[in-house]
Amino acid sequence: GLPCLGSSLAAEPCLAPPQWEGRWVLYDHGSGRNHRAAVSYDGLNHRIRVLQQHKKHTPCQRFFEYIYLYQSMVMFQIDQKTKECAKLALTEAWDPFDIPNNSTFEDQYVIGGPGDNVEVQEWSDRKPARQHETWVGVYTLKDCYPVQETYTRNSSVTTSTRFINLQLGISDPNVFTPPSTCQSARPERMAEVSC
Amino acid sequence: GLPCLGSSLAAEPCLAPPQWEGRWVLYDHGSGRNHRAAVSYDGLNHRIRVLQQHKKHTPCQRFFEYIYLYQSMVMFQIDQKTKECAKLALTEAWDPFDIPNNSTFEDQYVIGGPGDNVEVQEWSDRKPARQHETWVGVYTLKDCYPVQETYTRNSSVTTSTRFINLQLGISDPNVFTPPSTCQSARPERMAEVSC
Repeated sequence: GLPCLGSSLAAEPCLAPPQWEGRWVLYDHGSGRNHRAAVSYDGLNHRIRVLQQHKKHTPCQRFFEYIYLYQSMVMFQIDQKTKECAKLALTEAWDPFDIPNNSTFEDQYVIGGPGDNVEVQEWSDRKPARQHETWVGVYTLKDCYPVQETYTRNSSVTTSTRFINLQLGISDPNVFTPPSTCQSARPERMAEVSC
Repeated sequence: GLPCLGSSLAAEPCLAPPQWEGRWVLYDHGSGRNHRAAVSYDGLNHRIRVLQQHKKHTPCQRFFEYIYLYQSMVMFQIDQKTKECAKLALTEAWDPFDIPNNSTFEDQYVIGGPGDNVEVQEWSDRKPARQHETWVGVYTLKDCYPVQETYTRNSSVTTSTRFINLQLGISDPNVFTPPSTCQSARPERMAEVSC
């Protein structure tokens, strides 16, 4: 990523890295649960691979790999243990992890303190005519790495995703290729809880 | 703050700075609202001063200053405009912004990416005999600055507080002294919404 703004206040959103690998912690405000995953993000080819991670012992939980291919508008859901595969149509358009050009600058601040910190900016899709935003994105100031994305509907937050341990590029492009079990994929989503 | 851990995984929690000034963004999951404030934190004398900040135009909202004095177990609530003051008893014990010694190490990760990041640790009060934690704290690895504190009750998150723009020390200790209007303080809390 190119440094985009120096340390001045932003007139223009910075340009987020197009390809990275890392982890996210997605907090679902509806269920009150955190979903942790290893993530490969390929903004150039509009695809994302999400490998769910289990932190605690969760007996009835199945863990999946998700491959989202927005150029063909399909998503593969693969059971990490059995490799059982479901193929589903994507209904929402590709939404990259970046700051759209028409975004509203909200805030700039430092996470951490003197000598041990990272400087970030907050942008949203708030518009003068509308009281509330539906998206807030926090990105690092220097290299424009995503830090947090929050989505809101009807004034209440639905999901907050924190991005961590980001590395630039895609180390193994094969992660976007579904396994052979997906050739005879079922057309229904598999449930995350099995008992 | 002293560097406490280098970059190795933690056996012991680090020691958070005892006095700082900065801001916080407190997200209340019950109301779905963010509360922004300028904060002076004096861990040595068990006192906190919170100056609410208004970001958007909110017609019926009153904004307060809060002075928490845990050594005398009282809290002053002062209307920023009228200086009207209420004096209330504190019922919960002093709970510093640090990582208690008996905490459980949860995770260590980088916020941001290569060349533009801060490394942090996550600690909680999770215990083997209990499935869920009630507190999770994220602190920077090197200098142990608070980054985020999350409180949970009955498995659902109640508040998440993000700390930003921290500076060490207290620049003006007078912020902990209530204004003269508090000499005849009312004993009931004032409502935040006035119409």
